[in-house]
Amino acid sequence: MTDYPTALGASTPTSITLLGQDLAADVMGEVGFGELAFWLATQRRPAPGEVRVFEAVLAALADHGFTPTAIVTRLTYLSAPDSVQGALAAGLLGGGSRFLGVTEDCGRFLHDVIAARDPLPADEAGWDALALETVREWRASGRRVPGLGHHVHKDGDPRTPRLFQIAREEGLAGPHLSLFAAIGRVHPAVLGRTLPLNGAGTCGAALADLGLPLELLRGFALLARTAGLIGQLAEELRRPVANEIFLSVDLNNRSIPPEPNGGSHG
Amino acid sequence: MTDYPTALGASTPTSITLLGQDLAADVMGEVGFGELAFWLATQRRPAPGEVRVFEAVLAALADHGFTPTAIVTRLTYLSAPDSVQGALAAGLLGGGSRFLGVTEDCGRFLHDVIAARDPLPADEAGWDALALETVREWRASGRRVPGLGHHVHKDGDPRTPRLFQIAREEGLAGPHLSLFAAIGRVHPAVLGRTLPLNGAGTCGAALADLGLPLELLRGFALLARTAGLIGQLAEELRRPVANEIFLSVDLNNRSIPPEPNGGSHG
Amino acid sequence: MTDYPTALGASTPTSITLLGQDLAADVMGEVGFGELAFWLATQRRPAPGEVRVFEAVLAALADHGFTPTAIVTRLTYLSAPDSVQGALAAGLLGGGSRFLGVTEDCGRFLHDVIAARDPLPADEAGWDALALETVREWRASGRRVPGLGHHVHKDGDPRTPRLFQIAREEGLAGPHLSLFAAIGRVHPAVLGRTLPLNGAGTCGAALADLGLPLELLRGFALLARTAGLIGQLAEELRRPVANEIFLSVDLNNRSIPPEPNGGSHG
Amino acid sequence: MTDYPTALGASTPTSITLLGQDLAADVMGEVGFGELAFWLATQRRPAPGEVRVFEAVLAALADHGFTPTAIVTRLTYLSAPDSVQGALAAGLLGGGSRFLGVTEDCGRFLHDVIAARDPLPADEAGWDALALETVREWRASGRRVPGLGHHVHKDGDPRTPRLFQIAREEGLAGPHLSLFAAIGRVHPAVLGRTLPLNGAGTCGAALADLGLPLELLRGFALLARTAGLIGQLAEELRRPVANEIFLSVDLNNRSIPPEPNGGSHG
Repeated sequence: MTDYPTALGASTPTSITLLGQDLAADVMGEVGFGELAFWLATQRRPAPGEVRVFEAVLAALADHGFTPTAIVTRLTYLSAPDSVQGALAAGLLGGGSRFLGVTEDCGRFLHDVIAARDPLPADEAGWDALALETVREWRASGRRVPGLGHHVHKDGDPRTPRLFQIAREEGLAGPHLSLFAAIGRVHPAVLGRTLPLNGAGTCGAALADLGLPLELLRGFALLARTAGLIGQLAEELRRPVANEIFLSVDLNNRSIPPEPNGGSHG
Repeated sequence: MTDYPTALGASTPTSITLLGQDLAADVMGEVGFGELAFWLATQRRPAPGEVRVFEAVLAALADHGFTPTAIVTRLTYLSAPDSVQGALAAGLLGGGSRFLGVTEDCGRFLHDVIAARDPLPADEAGWDALALETVREWRASGRRVPGLGHHVHKDGDPRTPRLFQIAREEGLAGPHLSLFAAIGRVHPAVLGRTLPLNGAGTCGAALADLGLPLELLRGFALLARTAGLIGQLAEELRRPVANEIFLSVDLNNRSIPPEPNGGSHG
Repeated sequence: MTDYPTALGASTPTSITLLGQDLAADVMGEVGFGELAFWLATQRRPAPGEVRVFEAVLAALADHGFTPTAIVTRLTYLSAPDSVQGALAAGLLGGGSRFLGVTEDCGRFLHDVIAARDPLPADEAGWDALALETVREWRASGRRVPGLGHHVHKDGDPRTPRLFQIAREEGLAGPHLSLFAAIGRVHPAVLGRTLPLNGAGTCGAALADLGLPLELLRGFALLARTAGLIGQLAEELRRPVANEIFLSVDLNNRSIPPEPNGGSHG
Repeated sequence: MTDYPTALGASTPTSITLLGQDLAADVMGEVGFGELAFWLATQRRPAPGEVRVFEAVLAALADHGFTPTAIVTRLTYLSAPDSVQGALAAGLLGGGSRFLGVTEDCGRFLHDVIAARDPLPADEAGWDALALETVREWRASGRRVPGLGHHVHKDGDPRTPRLFQIAREEGLAGPHLSLFAAIGRVHPAVLGRTLPLNGAGTCGAALADLGLPLELLRGFALLARTAGLIGQLAEELRRPVANEIFLSVDLNNRSIPPEPNGGSHG
C-alpha cells in the first residue's frame, strides 16, 4: 500500500504537530512568521541571526508600489470581488522571469560559479580574481550578469548596502554575497561602466548564503509579495483606483483594422 | 490628469520608502515579517503584543498536511516545474469557502452580531446572554453557526485554548473572542450537543479583534498558507510524492459509458 | 480498492477514447470544437442547431476589448513571459461575479423562477404575467433583476435580438428565453423606465435553454474568454501595449502618507 | 496622449465589432468557435480546411482523463466551490513544460530547423536527409528530440497518423509536418530503436504549419484543455471523486521526522 511521508502538518484527534513540534504549545506564540517560513522550507529551525537576514530580504521584496503584479491584483479584485484568493493568485502569476526572477537568477548564477570552484577564495583579492574571470566569461558569451543594474536606482540601490550590513552583523555574509560584492568591485574594468548591484540580486545572494533551496528562491520573493498584495488590496478597499486604471485604458482604446498574421513559419 | 495615490512602496533614484518609512534604514533588519504584513494591511505599525497574536494565527493556519491545496501545489509543480509561481497560485486557489473560508466566515459572523449591539455586554453573563440569543436565532433559521465543530478534533481543537491564552496574555481578547468563547459555553443548551470551537474560527475571531479588515481575513489565511505551500514544495523536491499521487488516481481510473445530461432545466 | 470512474478520456496502449468514442477515428476531423465542448459538458452529442446557438453564445462572450481580464493577461505576460499558462489563468481569475457573472446569474435566476412554476405558461400573455409578477417581487425586495441594463448599450444590446433570432431559427428558444423576453416587455411598467436586455444575460438564458449545467454557466463564459485572451496575447506580441499601461499607472503614482486603519471592529 | 490600439473587440452605444466584423450580424451564428479562436489569434479568417485541422488538434488535446491538471481542477473545486474560475485557472497552471509543453516544444524545434534552411527540401529524400542531420546533431549534443516517444502508446500514438491524414486531405501538410514525418522515418537508424511520433508533438507540427504564432502554441493546448476541464467539472458535479482522491492521500500520510536541509550551497 502506498503511503505519503511528510514532516509537515499532521493531526490526531487530540494533537496537531508541525515539523515534529506540538503546534499549539511550541509553535503558536513562540515562533515568528518569518522564522516559521524558513523552518518550513528547510525543516530546521533557523538561528535568530538567520531570521533577521531572512526577514530583511522579505521586507526588501514585499512591495514596490504599482508594479504589474499590484495592478493585476487590484484589477482582478475589481472584476471578481468574491474571490480574494483569485486576486492574490493572479498577482503572484506575474512573479516570473522578468519582475521577480532576478532574485532566483542571481542566486543560481552565484551558486553555479561557486560550486565549480574548490577551494573557495580565502580573501577579498581571491574573490576579486574569481569575479573578474566570471564577468569576463559572461561578457564574452554575450550574457548579462544577473543582479547588475537598476532602471531607477542608477547610482546605487539603497537596499544593497543595507542587506550586506545586516548579513555581516549576523555573521552570515557567505560565499554568495562575497562573490556578488566582488562583482560589484570589478565589473567596471570589464564592462567599461559602473552598474549598481541591485537589491533583488543581493536578496538572491543572501538567501543562497542562508542555505535555502535554490529551486525555491523565487518562492520567497512570492511569499514577500503575498504580504504586499494584501496591502494593495487593503488600500484598494479604502481608496480604490482599479476602476480608474481600467477606464484609463478602455476609454483610450483605438480601434484599428486587423493585421493578418498569415505568413507561414516556413 | 489622473494620478494614483498610494502609501505603499515608492521610489526615487536615491531612496525607497514603504508605508512612509525609509525601507533600507528603518524597515529592513528592524521589522519582522509578520509585523510588516500587519502594517501593510492596516497602514499602522502594530504593537509587539499584536504581532504575537497575529503570528500565532499565521502559525495555526500555515500547514495542515495533505490538504487539497497542498496536493494541488505538488501536482501542479509536477506538471509545470518551470513555474513555481503557478504551483503556489494553484494551491492558493483552493483557499475558498470550504477549506480556508471558516476564518473569514467566523470573523464576519461575530462582527455582524457585535455591530448590531450597543452597548456591548460588560461581563461574561452578558456575553452568554448575547451568545444564547444568537445561537437560538441561527438555529431557528436553519443556519450552522460558523466556527463550531471539527471533523477530526471532536473533543477540542488544541489551537483554540492556546490562541485564547495568547490573546489574553497580550490583553487582546476583545469582543469577538469574548462572544466566541460565550458561544462555546452556551451552545450545548441550544443544540443539544457539545461541539468544539474550531481553530480556524478562533483565528477569525482573533484577527477581527486585532482590527484587521474583515474583507481580507481570508487573505491572512492565504498568506500563512503561502509559507506552508513553500514548505510542501521544498519537501516535494527532496522526497517527491506527486507522481505517486497522480498514478494512484490515473491507474485506478475506470472507464464508464457517458451519462447524458440532456434534460431541459425547465 | 477505490477506483475513479470517468466517461471522459481513457487510453490503452493501442487506443484512445473520449466520451466513449474512438478519439482518432470518430472525433478528430469529425467534431468541431464548440460541439466537442458541449459534448464534454453534457456527455451527449449536441444536434447541429444546438451547436449553432452554443457557438453564437461563445462568440458573444469571447472578447470585449480592454476589459480588466484582458489588461490582466497582458500585464502578467509582460511580467512573466515564460508562462503563457500563467497569463491566461490570471486573466480568467477576473471572471467572477462582476464582469463575467451576469451570464450565470441570469441563467440561474430564470431557472429558479421557472422551476417553481408548474405548468409553465402556454403563450406570450402567460409569460408576461409571470414576468410581471417576478419583476414586482424582485423590485419589492430591493434586488436588481439580472440581465437588465447595460452601461454602454443603453438603447439596446445588439447581441440580444440576434441571439433570440438564432435560437428561434433553430427551434431552441425555450422557457428561459421566453421568460427573459417577457421581462424585456413588462419591466418598464414596474420600474418606470426601459432598460435593455443585455447580451450577457441573454447568453445565460440561451445556455440554460440548451440544458447545460447551471453550476457551470460561468465556465462557458470562461471558455469563450480563453479564446479571447489568446487573441489579446497574440496582439500583444505584435503590437505591445502592456508596458505603456504599466507605466501610465506607475509614473502617475502619488505618494501619500499612510492612513491607519486601526479602529476596532467592535 | 497615450492610446491603446486594438483590432479585437470594440463597442459604440449602438454597435459591437470584433476583428473588424459586426459581431451580432456577421460573427454570431456565422462563425464556429474553433474558427473564431483561430481568427482571434491570427487576425485573419481561416479557410474551412484550416479550421478542420485546427479543430482536430484541439480535439486531440482536450482531455486525457485523470491527468494532474484534471485532478487539480477537481480538488480545487472541492475546496473552493464558489469559484469556477479558480478551479479552471488552477488546472491550466499545470499546462507547463512537462504535461502540455510538448506541443510547443515540438513546433518550435521544427520551426528552428526549417528557418535555418533555404531552400527547403523538395522531396521526401530531401526531408529524410535534413531529418537525419538534425537527429544526429541533437543526439550528439545529448538532447532529446521533441515529440518522439510516448509512455503509453509505445507502438504508435493513434492520433498521429490521423492528424497527418487530415492535414493531407486539406492540403495543409507543410514543412513542419514533412520534417516531423521524416524524423519518424530516420530516427531508428541514429538512435538504435524505434520510437513513436507522439500526438502532442504532431499537434505542434500541425499548428506551426497553420501559421499560428509559435509563442502561443501552448495557448492552443490550454484552450483545448479548458473545454476538457469543464467536462471534468461537469462530471465531478454528477459523480464526485475529488473527496475520495483527497482522502486517499490524507489518510495514507505517514508522519516522519524533519530532515534538515541545512547544508550551505557553497
